[in-house]
Order: sequence, then structure tokens, then C-alpha cells
Amino acid sequence: MYTHPEEVVMTQHVVFDVDLHRLKITDTFLGQYQRLVRDVVIPYQWDALNDRIADTEPSHAIENFRIAAGQQAGEFYGMVFQDSDVAKWLEAVAWSLCQKPDAELEHIADGVIELVAAAQCEDGYLNTWFTVKAPEQRWSNLAECHELYCAGHMIEAGVAFFQATGKRRLLDVVCRLADHIDHVFGPGEHQLQGYPGHPEIELALMRLFDVTQEPRYRELTHFFVTQRGQSPHYYDEEYEKRGKTSYWNTYGPAWMVKDKAYSQAHLPLVEQNQATGHAVRFVYLMTGVAHLARLSEDETLRQSCLRLWQDMAQRQMYITGGIGSQSSGEAFSSDYDLPNDTVYAESCASIGLMMFARRMVEMEADSQYGDVMERALYNTVLGGMALDGKHFFYVNPLEVQPKAVPFNHVYDHIKPVRQRWFGCACCPPNIARLLTSLGHYIYTPRSDALYVNLYVGNEAELVAGAVGLRLRLSGNYPWDEQVTLSVLSPEPVTHTLALRLPDWCPSPSVTLNGQPVQGDVVRGYLHLQRTWREGDTLCLTLPMPVRRVYGNPLVRHQAGKVALQRGPVVYCLEEADNGAQLHNLWLPENAVPRLLNGTASLAHKVLLQAEGLRYQANQPEKQALWRYDAHPATPVPHTLTFIPWFAWANRGEGEMRVWVNEAPGPA
Amino acid sequence: MYTHPEEVVMTQHVVFDVDLHRLKITDTFLGQYQRLVRDVVIPYQWDALNDRIADTEPSHAIENFRIAAGQQAGEFYGMVFQDSDVAKWLEAVAWSLCQKPDAELEHIADGVIELVAAAQCEDGYLNTWFTVKAPEQRWSNLAECHELYCAGHMIEAGVAFFQATGKRRLLDVVCRLADHIDHVFGPGEHQLQGYPGHPEIELALMRLFDVTQEPRYRELTHFFVTQRGQSPHYYDEEYEKRGKTSYWNTYGPAWMVKDKAYSQAHLPLVEQNQATGHAVRFVYLMTGVAHLARLSEDETLRQSCLRLWQDMAQRQMYITGGIGSQSSGEAFSSDYDLPNDTVYAESCASIGLMMFARRMVEMEADSQYGDVMERALYNTVLGGMALDGKHFFYVNPLEVQPKAVPFNHVYDHIKPVRQRWFGCACCPPNIARLLTSLGHYIYTPRSDALYVNLYVGNEAELVAGAVGLRLRLSGNYPWDEQVTLSVLSPEPVTHTLALRLPDWCPSPSVTLNGQPVQGDVVRGYLHLQRTWREGDTLCLTLPMPVRRVYGNPLVRHQAGKVALQRGPVVYCLEEADNGAQLHNLWLPENAVPRLLNGTASLAHKVLLQAEGLRYQANQPEKQALWRYDAHPATPVPHTLTFIPWFAWANRGEGEMRVWVNEAPGPA
Repeated sequence: MYTHPEEVVMTQHVVFDVDLHRLKITDTFLGQYQRLVRDVVIPYQWDALNDRIADTEPSHAIENFRIAAGQQAGEFYGMVFQDSDVAKWLEAVAWSLCQKPDAELEHIADGVIELVAAAQCEDGYLNTWFTVKAPEQRWSNLAECHELYCAGHMIEAGVAFFQATGKRRLLDVVCRLADHIDHVFGPGEHQLQGYPGHPEIELALMRLFDVTQEPRYRELTHFFVTQRGQSPHYYDEEYEKRGKTSYWNTYGPAWMVKDKAYSQAHLPLVEQNQATGHAVRFVYLMTGVAHLARLSEDETLRQSCLRLWQDMAQRQMYITGGIGSQSSGEAFSSDYDLPNDTVYAESCASIGLMMFARRMVEMEADSQYGDVMERALYNTVLGGMALDGKHFFYVNPLEVQPKAVPFNHVYDHIKPVRQRWFGCACCPPNIARLLTSLGHYIYTPRSDALYVNLYVGNEAELVAGAVGLRLRLSGNYPWDEQVTLSVLSPEPVTHTLALRLPDWCPSPSVTLNGQPVQGDVVRGYLHLQRTWREGDTLCLTLPMPVRRVYGNPLVRHQAGKVALQRGPVVYCLEEADNGAQLHNLWLPENAVPRLLNGTASLAHKVLLQAEGLRYQANQPEKQALWRYDAHPATPVPHTLTFIPWFAWANRGEGEMRVWVNEAPGPA
Repeated sequence: MYTHPEEVVMTQHVVFDVDLHRLKITDTFLGQYQRLVRDVVIPYQWDALNDRIADTEPSHAIENFRIAAGQQAGEFYGMVFQDSDVAKWLEAVAWSLCQKPDAELEHIADGVIELVAAAQCEDGYLNTWFTVKAPEQRWSNLAECHELYCAGHMIEAGVAFFQATGKRRLLDVVCRLADHIDHVFGPGEHQLQGYPGHPEIELALMRLFDVTQEPRYRELTHFFVTQRGQSPHYYDEEYEKRGKTSYWNTYGPAWMVKDKAYSQAHLPLVEQNQATGHAVRFVYLMTGVAHLARLSEDETLRQSCLRLWQDMAQRQMYITGGIGSQSSGEAFSSDYDLPNDTVYAESCASIGLMMFARRMVEMEADSQYGDVMERALYNTVLGGMALDGKHFFYVNPLEVQPKAVPFNHVYDHIKPVRQRWFGCACCPPNIARLLTSLGHYIYTPRSDALYVNLYVGNEAELVAGAVGLRLRLSGNYPWDEQVTLSVLSPEPVTHTLALRLPDWCPSPSVTLNGQPVQGDVVRGYLHLQRTWREGDTLCLTLPMPVRRVYGNPLVRHQAGKVALQRGPVVYCLEEADNGAQLHNLWLPENAVPRLLNGTASLAHKVLLQAEGLRYQANQPEKQALWRYDAHPATPVPHTLTFIPWFAWANRGEGEMRVWVNEAPGPA
């Protein structure tokens, strides 16, 4: 294969949204997750939203809407952003209906939409917290109160429901809401020059623009993005104006107003050089910005996206696709500061990372974005949900010693096993909507080429230039190296297919109808242009040797350690297979891991085994805290068993670690 | 030498307090610290107590006393335990006057004592916070408000001043205070059955008992100790009674009331099996308990001391003699949980550890207590103060990456360089009083033998049985292996000298007047009984090879790592000598460290050097966060320079680490 120089400048191309009706996930592995979402997660979360789950914190989210709609008496209960749980659930339902029609579910959702419509105010305003608790305080606390965030999620739901069902009911509601926001915010004298504490409205308005082509929504996004971080600071101004009241005091009074970097509002975006603050806020913001930059062909914004992506992905991301290395503020810390045990790496942040990556692929068509998208998906996002669909991780550490967790407060945020629905239930519905909308991430149909980002099995009809192209992608990803892409279109289609060559794959190869095929590799995608005919079959071989991963020497937490990865899947040691004290296990440099089929809860997953060493305490009974001159432990042969990291903590509580000791010798 | 079995049961022996007038520190190394305390720290802290130091938080401590004494108008300012800074300063002054009379300083101190006396209430009560701010709330919040703690420190000062100057003024004040407390607290119907949130009164009352021989003080200590942790819980009762007001809300309202383990009040002492909660509270409590157990020959209390010491020293202590492995609550975490970078290890806690160890030696005469005392002294306690006497560490990490500190909140408590006087200034005056009273720790004169715990150069007249014994201890500890102990008494004295054989010393030997001498080793002390005559000279040779320290295999933070120790001094790598990225340095198993004399700020200190490896990044300019299959760094020869850990951070800000990578090979 011929590789183009990486400096190729991409011209802007039209991007087409994938119609999820026309894309069926057939993937053995992820199909099971999609079914889990459909059969378990969505009904379970519906019960949760209605407070029908015993022994968990109540949600009250549906009841809040009833109260706001005047259908019921009562008080608002829950977080200031409780509405967003309903919106995310609706979005998950919408995408799920594309996969598999379900009249009963659609009927329930229609009812929820009517309820949402009923809770909307005359002027288009929609937010149950303010409507019920403090209608006079609308838009007075953008820094802290998530009004635009909740609006954004409802707009996403409205767009999704329209795309999934063709029904305009919720779309009309959210257009009225967006119009109201457009009326309230803007450069005009009687408008507010503010922008949200928690970004989300930006990416949502861009999606609304995609379906409505209403330029005001794109312009409003541009307004929000460029207002951000300007001086004098809007958060300070509104804080003064409302008499210095504050909603959050987790880290001191009005900390969210004061710590502007937490919301990426410390500087105008164009002056920001580092991924900083709350990780979810960051990726949500950048998702909207990248979408806007592409559609407005704004080179300054594009450069901000490239620059900030680079810092995040090259200096602040875990190999699991986790971002946000600290619990305090659920935030980024600094370049190369990647602790494995005190990390936050929120599930929602990795979902947001996939969203940001998707918009970057659409803009740049560079495989690095697909690589990150895949890494986040097969590791942190999948790891966020238990295999029963009812337990979730919000925080995704790469190393856990459960015995220490309850006693050392640096681990207060760490849960050694997945939890049920939470009071602050951001992650579970986010995982649900991501998994049901997976089709949006597999392909990026651009006018120049149809980009294949993920090798998730599916059958789809996609836009290929001016016409449609029907494809079937099959295989047993991420476990088997063979991926087959078959053309199903009865009519010939002339277009370019661009296949992502994953960064983890040392020697990808491809045949067309059994013959080796030539193509150009441009920015990590293999471009194959031809007239595709029914029956054409591309066989992509992505060899999946077990790869040893070594950390950048600037990352002190990985010095002397190695991690294993096969395909996009990162592996870990668990106590269940290896006994306790995982820190005493060593993987020798020359050990050759072998593949092993998992059983029970690990069935249909590839495990790894290697001959290693365990440092066994010499006198475990009466051992002091240290010993002079001689190792207090002796290495004995030990078979190390690695499991996919996303599947950890499905067999009870135990130690886990991704980065394993490896003793490097002199060169 | 013949070693007795360790199971020897010690009978109770009378212990004599060392008279600090009759003990002059002549030690080159620690003498310099004592002079620093006398010439710099005490005057500096006097300025601090009087708010004459620019650019630091005010203390206001002296002014609080003036206001309480009615000599000045104004408001109380500072912590609820601000009085204790004055008490600790007075104690440091007292011990310093023993070392070197200073009429001017004594005059100042006499003035402070008059001020303290003037601030005492008619009934003996003494506490400026309550007297000025809330006299009606006296003794209503023992859990949170440090009244008994401040009383304890003033009692210690009164005892010290009496012992140092023979003046009874402050002793009388504190006896009235103790009598008042004895009146308020006790089992009687009209008495309070409470005990302090922060222990200190216990150890102070025992010291007061030592000088006054007033049994009530010992009995009151016994009351406080045995009331602790009883049900129903006193902290809850007083909390209800005062209408649930709370002074501290660092970790939520009334957390100090609720988290009873923080104050070691979760259970009666006899039921406690683990060192837990605030580390300073723990060692202060146990200091008093050990003192009480010995003098009351209380086997139950003695067993509690042994059991809790064991847990602390064998499962929760750093090699630096630091205790308290977490910042939250400045507290112990759990057995074998010893993080190097997020540790608290407060300077005050290691001072309290020395106090606890001293009382344990007095009770048990076992060298393990002297070993810990020495370890704490030569590492964390000395490390707590800069070589200029004006900058202090409260927190003593074993690993610091200064670049990461400002951005990751798990490091909020970490200071990469020593700070000036603090608003909460517990540590500086504590270091001052410890260093000036060092003579109390060097010897433990018991009726059975005169125990020599520390090899700090000095000349002293000590109680040896019924008579006095004059000794001179000289050498160049902790740098040189020769220690000489000369008898100066003109009259022959028949008694046992018991020399601690340090745990770090592989092969101690001793000669008497140039001839090998036989002695019994009992519980780590070499016992030499004879009639000592003027001119008798014991030469103790304590070979100081550089020792490699290996962590207990249960401590995950030390796996694959080694630390260096020589004599009692623990070493570390600093960026100043070794460049940045200390995590990329490796000390090979077979490297033989050599000694090196330090220069400049490290003059007169022994440094270590060894040939090791540095993993050098192959492409530092464009390096990704990880690399597959090949190390992204190559080992190059690198000379590792180790400095005594207590002397770190005296050359500006930089990385530091104690535990260094060592690649162990298979057996």
C-alpha cells in the first residue's frame, strides 16, 4: 500500500448523517450490548425514572415533569439537571426504535413527550427545576444551573425522535425551546450575553441545525462558543447581579463561578492550549465546536479543535480511552499526570470523547480520531456497564485495591464493583443512548469517500456520493482478525471506500474478491475507489498479535510497567484469576502471551495467559514493614491470566490492575 | 555477645527523669539544630506569636491572652487551639534555658507567664478562646474544641518551666488549672464524664504527676483514658445537649463528632486493635497511656499499648518514621496502605511518635522503641525544618513531582518546598520543643539499668541506681560508626549500662578500655554491668554499610522498588542532582553505592552515589502517550546521587523520591 504524506490538507466535504433505520447492527459482540440496552437497560431506566426500583436513590424525574405541567401537586426533587435523564432516556428509546420497532415502548415515549410538551411554558421555556422552584430566577445562573445543558439534551432527544420516528411533536417542542433561547441570548441590547456552565447546548443546536437547516441555530452556537471566556466575565457579572447566591458549594461557596477553568471558561477558546477542567464539559463543548467549525469553515475554530484534541489525546488520555485523571472536579489535571488508582475517567467523559472524535473524523478524516473512538468504545464505555445491564461504573480506575478503598479518602470516588442507578444518574442513560446510536460512529459518509471507522458488524444503506450504497460488514470483532465488507447494492456505485487501518494493527492487508488490492493510505484510511458491484467482497485482515504497551517516559505512573492490548481491547489482571497482591506479579520481557477462550461471565471473550512470576513473601506470618539487603519475597513461576479490562468486576470484588510490572534489563 | 531470648518478661522498674540542666548536647550534627532553635527558631517564633513577621498569616496568640486578661480590648483571632502555640513556645524556651541560660529570654518568658496567669479565671479555668468568645460554653464541646488539649500543652509548659528554672509561677497556674479540670471531670454526679477530642491532657497530667506526685492527676488521666469510647457516647450526648452546634465542618457538619475513630473514640481502648484516625491524636493519647500503664502497673493498658504500637510500627509506618498515610483527617488509613506521594506524615505526628516511643522504652526497655525513635528523629522530625530554621514542612511525602502538585487535587496538602509560619502553626513550635528537650530521649535511666537510646553526643550526669553517673558520649553520629562513651564520675559507680544495638546495624561491637567486652543482649540492648570508674571508655562500633531496604510484599507502593539507608538516615534522589523524571532512574541490584561528602547546603552530610541507569526517551520531541512492543526509552548509564531525605528541598523546588526502581531478576 502506498502511503500519502500526512500533511495532505483536506478540503471541506459534505457529511451525511447515517440514517439509523437503514443500519442494523448484526455484530455478535456489540449486538448483545444493544439487545441488553433494549431489553434490560431501557425498561430498567424507565422504572428508575418513575421511582420503581427498590433500594436505590429516587429519581423523581418524571414526577418533576408532571408537577411542572400542573398535572400533579408536589415539590421538585433531584439535581438541578434531573430533566436531562428523561431526555437521554428518550434519545436512547428513539435510537432503539430504529433498531427494532416496539409499539408499546413508542407509546410510552409518546406519553413522555406529551408530558414534556405540557411542561413547556408559553414562551417556549422548558426546565422543571426553574418552573417548579424558581420561575423568576430563569437564566440568572448559567454558570451553575444547567438550564442550557438540560435544554441541549432535550433538543438532542427531539432531533433523535424525529429522525427515528418521523414524528415532529418533540422536534417542534425543542424548536420552540431553541427559538426561545435564541430570543433570550445574543448580542442585542436586551439579550443576555451569557453561555452555559456545562456545555451541551452547542452540540445540540448543531444537530438541530442539521435537521432543520435553520441558520439561526448555527449562529446561536457560534455566539455561545465565541462568548465563552470573554472579559469582563459573564459568570461574575450574573453572580453579582443575582446577589451572590450560589447553588453548589462542594468545594466552597460559588466555586463553580470562581473556578472558571472547570467550565473551560477561563479564557476564550482561541487562547486555550490545554484540555482542562471538568472532562465531560470539555468534550461536550468540543463536539459542538468541531461540528460548528466544519460547517462554518472557520479555520480559527478548527485550529482550536486540533490543538486541544492534541493535548487531550497525546498528553492526558489513558490507554483505556478514559479522560479526567482526578476526582476533584471530575477533571483533567495536567500533561502526563495519569495516576491509575485515583483517576476519575468518568464513563460519560469517554462517551463525550466518542462524540468529539466523531465530529473530528467528519472534519478531518484522519484515523487518529477513529482510533480514539474505538479505544473509548471497547474499553471505558463498555466497561461502564455490567454484563447484566443493571449496574454501572461512573468512575473507571485502571488499578484497584479494594481493601484500601474504604479507608483512604483518596479513593472516596472509587467503587470496586458497579453500582445500581444513582441519584446523579448521568452515566447509565448516556451509555444507553451511545450504544443504541452506535451506527453514527461506524461510518462517516462524506462526499469524498465513505469512511469506515469501526468494524462493528452491520448491514447498512449509506450515502455514497449522490446515491445509496448497501453494505454488509461482518466478522467477529474485536476478537477475530478477519473483517468482511460485502456490497449488496443491486446497482453499481462508483465511490471511494475508506477503511480505517487501526493504530494497534502492525500489518493490515486487504483483498477484493480474493485478489490483493491496491489502495492509497491517506491519514490512516485505506482509500479504495472503484465502481462497486453487488457481490464485491473486501476481506480486511487486521492481525491481532498481543501487543505490549509501554507508557511515555514522562508518565511516572507507568515507569517499569507494561500493559497488554489485543486489537482495541486493553487487558488487566484480576484477583479472581491471579490471587491477591497483583503488585507482586511480574510479566517478563520475553513472556509470550497465548490466547484463551473465556468461560462463564467471560464466555465469548478472548483472555490472555502468560508465564510470569509472583513474588511470594518468605515469611508471611511475621513480616516487618521492610527488610534490609534481601528481598522479603522470592519469585516463583506463576501463570498470569489477563481478561479484557471492560469485563472486570463482574465476578465480585477483587483487585485489578492494567499496568503490570515488567523488569526491563539494560539494552 | 550472648543474646537472651526475646520473651524475657521485664519487671517494672523506677524511671528517673533526665535533668536537662545536667545534660549538655555536644553533638556536632544535632548541636547545630539545637543552636538553630535557640538562635533562630525561638526568636522567630516569638515574633510570629506577636505578629511581627511580614507576609505570613497572623498568629494573634499573645494578643488573645492580653484580651482574655483584660489588658487590651479586641476580638479573639485564630484557631480554637491557638493558645497551644504559646504553650509550646514556652516549653521550648524552658528546655533551651537548660541548655544555655539567657536572662533576656527568661525575662520575656516570665512576662508571658504573668500574662498567662492574668488570663486564668478565678476558678482556675484557662483558655482564651472560650474566655473571650464564649465563656458560657466552657466544656460544652470536648469533641471539637481543644480545651483539654490547650490545657495539656500549658501544663507541659508549666512542668518544663519548673524543671528548667525552678520557678513555680507557671506550675502553680497549671496546678490550679488541673485542679479545676479534676473538679469538673470525674465519675461524680455533678461532674462531666467526658474526655477530649484531641488527646494531650493525658500525657500532660502524667508529667504533672511526675513532678508533683499528686495522685489525683494520675487518677484523672485514668478517668480520661477509660472513659474514652464508652457507650452511650459522650460526644453525641454533649452534641445533643448543646443543640447540635458544630465548630468544624471541613468534611460536613459535626464530622468530628460523628467520625469517632478520627479521635480514637470509636471504641474503648481495650477493644481497639488498629492505629486509626488522626495520627497526632493517636500518638499523643498513647504517650499518656503508656506513661499511665507503667506507673499504675495496669496490665490491660500495657497490652493495649503493645498491641496498638505493633499495628502502627509493623503495618502503618513509613521508613522515614512518618505516620498518617492520608491527608483527609491527617490520618492513618489501613494496614500496608502506604502511598508515597499522597501521604500526610505530619511532622507533629513523628514528634508524637518519639514521645510514645520514649514512654514505651521506659515501660518495656526494648530496642524496637529506640529504633523507631531514632528513625523518626533523623528523618521526619529533622526534615520538618529547613536548614535556615525559618521554613517548615507540615507534610512529609516520600515522593514529589512538583509539576503535578498544583493541578491534581490529591496533592492539595503537598508543598514541594518548606513554608514559613502557618495560620495553623502546630508543627514549628513542636519541632522546637522536641529539639530542645532531646536529652529526654537519649537516655532512659531506670533502676535496673541506664538505657542509652540515641547516640547523640552529650555530657550528662544521670541517675544510676542510687547515685549519679557522669558520662560523655562522643562521635560523629549519624555519619561515623564510632561512638565513644566515657565515664567522668570521680567516684566508682556500680550499675548496668544498656546500649541500644540499632536494628539497621548488622554487626555492632564494643570494647572497654581497648579490650573486647562481654555483655548480654536483652531485647536489643547490650547490658554491661560493672563498677564504672573515671576514665573507663566504651568504644561502640556501629558499622554503617549502605543498606538496601525492601518493602513488605503487602505494600503495593514499594513493589519493585528499593530505598537506601545508612545508619538511621534514609536517602532519596533529588532533581537537583539527578535531573528530572526520577521515575526513569533505576538502581541495579548489583550496584554498590559509595560515600561522598556533601557540599554547600549539604556540607558535613554523607551523600551516596551509585552507578545506575536512566531510561532516556528515544524521541522526546514527538512522543505519543504510549508505544507498542518497544520501549520508548533506552537505558543509558547514569550516576545516581542520593542525599539524606531529611535534607531535601533545601535547594529550590524539584522532584524527589525515596523508593527507587530496582529490577529484580528471577531467583
